[in-house]
Amino acid sequence: MTASRSTSTPTRSTASAENPFAAGCAWIEGEYVPIREARIPILDAGFVRSDLTYDVVGVWEGSFFRLPDHMARLEAGLRRIRLRSPVSRNQIHEILFELVRRSGLREAYVETVVTRGVPAPGERDPRQGDPRFYAYAIPYVWIVRPEQQEVGTQAVVARETVRIPPDAVDPRVKNFHWGDLVRGLFEAYDRGGWLPILTDGRGLIAEGPGFNVFALVDGRLMTPRAGVLEGITRKTVIELAREAGLSMSVGDLPVASLYRATEVFFTSTAGGVMPVTMLDGKPVGDGRPGPVTMNLRSRYWDLHRDPRYNLPVDYS
Amino acid sequence: MTASRSTSTPTRSTASAENPFAAGCAWIEGEYVPIREARIPILDAGFVRSDLTYDVVGVWEGSFFRLPDHMARLEAGLRRIRLRSPVSRNQIHEILFELVRRSGLREAYVETVVTRGVPAPGERDPRQGDPRFYAYAIPYVWIVRPEQQEVGTQAVVARETVRIPPDAVDPRVKNFHWGDLVRGLFEAYDRGGWLPILTDGRGLIAEGPGFNVFALVDGRLMTPRAGVLEGITRKTVIELAREAGLSMSVGDLPVASLYRATEVFFTSTAGGVMPVTMLDGKPVGDGRPGPVTMNLRSRYWDLHRDPRYNLPVDYS
Repeated sequence: MTASRSTSTPTRSTASAENPFAAGCAWIEGEYVPIREARIPILDAGFVRSDLTYDVVGVWEGSFFRLPDHMARLEAGLRRIRLRSPVSRNQIHEILFELVRRSGLREAYVETVVTRGVPAPGERDPRQGDPRFYAYAIPYVWIVRPEQQEVGTQAVVARETVRIPPDAVDPRVKNFHWGDLVRGLFEAYDRGGWLPILTDGRGLIAEGPGFNVFALVDGRLMTPRAGVLEGITRKTVIELAREAGLSMSVGDLPVASLYRATEVFFTSTAGGVMPVTMLDGKPVGDGRPGPVTMNLRSRYWDLHRDPRYNLPVDYS
Repeated sequence: MTASRSTSTPTRSTASAENPFAAGCAWIEGEYVPIREARIPILDAGFVRSDLTYDVVGVWEGSFFRLPDHMARLEAGLRRIRLRSPVSRNQIHEILFELVRRSGLREAYVETVVTRGVPAPGERDPRQGDPRFYAYAIPYVWIVRPEQQEVGTQAVVARETVRIPPDAVDPRVKNFHWGDLVRGLFEAYDRGGWLPILTDGRGLIAEGPGFNVFALVDGRLMTPRAGVLEGITRKTVIELAREAGLSMSVGDLPVASLYRATEVFFTSTAGGVMPVTMLDGKPVGDGRPGPVTMNLRSRYWDLHRDPRYNLPVDYS
């Protein structure tokens, strides 16, 4: 491994200065291209109709974390919106590993997108789509940066915007319908916070921009079941909580309960387990990341060294 | 005009066989490109967050129809989502006319899009966006083709999907959040129809994929006020109805009223006034396009020759 790293291939991982893929690598219609050159057709229904599903898997210390879970979710999403990937599961695997290998990134955010594609001129029937597959690897993304995770982030419960309801757009089909989430971000900034938590408009917590929400209420860990993305980090934390013998409820999370919580955290492939220590300008619990949160966070990262969950990239 | 058409410039309107822009022309970062080559960055927030607003204006018989109204709507949308076009209104005008001139299209569908742009690596704050402007002209698009408009189209009221509510995503800001509308299209096909009408899930009609809904109920023309795009064709039809002394209500349109309607039609820049003659498999009125609909439709197209509403393109 060390030997191969020192060889002079254009894609070697240590050649970040010369490697054109060091800032990220994309797969566009059969070609690997530097991320800043990666483009999609302006007429793709994935753009002009946001008609697509996607997934993001993390690479940590050179290994894909829970890749089969991410692929299964992508496939379930495709079935739900009656879309078929033009690229097989095996080919997707190959492409994702090659993207990371070329980038040389040891920690990466790896996105796969399947869109309805470019319709024939004037065609508006989605059944006549010609699906397209795109993928890219970029440096790992943090919704809350690690140093901020040590002290916790500041969230607000959005009042002006509700989450798009599941009977309009199914949140289990991971999608780019972020209009509500972006509005929520602006509201959070306006109110002195950094991240919004959206509700269903009927008193229940839904989710935030790119993350699921957990709260420790009366000693019980709660996270919403319906109207949210079925996050892989969320799933991992639920498993870890059950393993640890914590009382865990996957069901309704009322806004009122969130305000009574002694610990609150967010989960995402883009950042892991992220403590929330201020809510609507008031401290959560004692205003420091709580012990249940920090324990789950530490065990979440430990899992990244467990061979059952990780698939190493060959960077040679 | 005839003389200039016969000159041999690469962009002359009659040279459709050789004109690389005949199938459509796009403006991408300062360059005019053939539509099939027009691409946007895969990392544009307009794609990965659907964070944008857009507009579509029609060109008919070589003239833009109600362009200032479309521009005013685009600008209102931009303000609502706190986005600023990197291209001025005057420049937009210039670009749109040039797109149509180069394409040579006498009847065109002209789209302008302003997105939040490509963020810096790892940046998730929309305030840090670097907005982008894109535009293109393609051949005129018909949601219902003219020959089908003569007999009317077949619609269903969607039961499985509701329209994204305005407190999640503001429909007055024209957007690409079409997940609900595409689901509606699939439901319409499944139920033997061609186009869906979505409701707000609480008994009121909202809109369909790319169009507003009108119904003649007990001699009164009704169209929803809230939770819908403020269509320019909708606005034109409301004006025409009032001019004609029709009783016109812009307010709630209950689903129950739609079923009692003697005439139903859709409006869109992509097709004008489109009669609906079958609803949920049953005839509307006597099953033929009604006189009020056909009168408004004819007067809508007449307006396309009224100099007050039209700006001619110079194709020379």
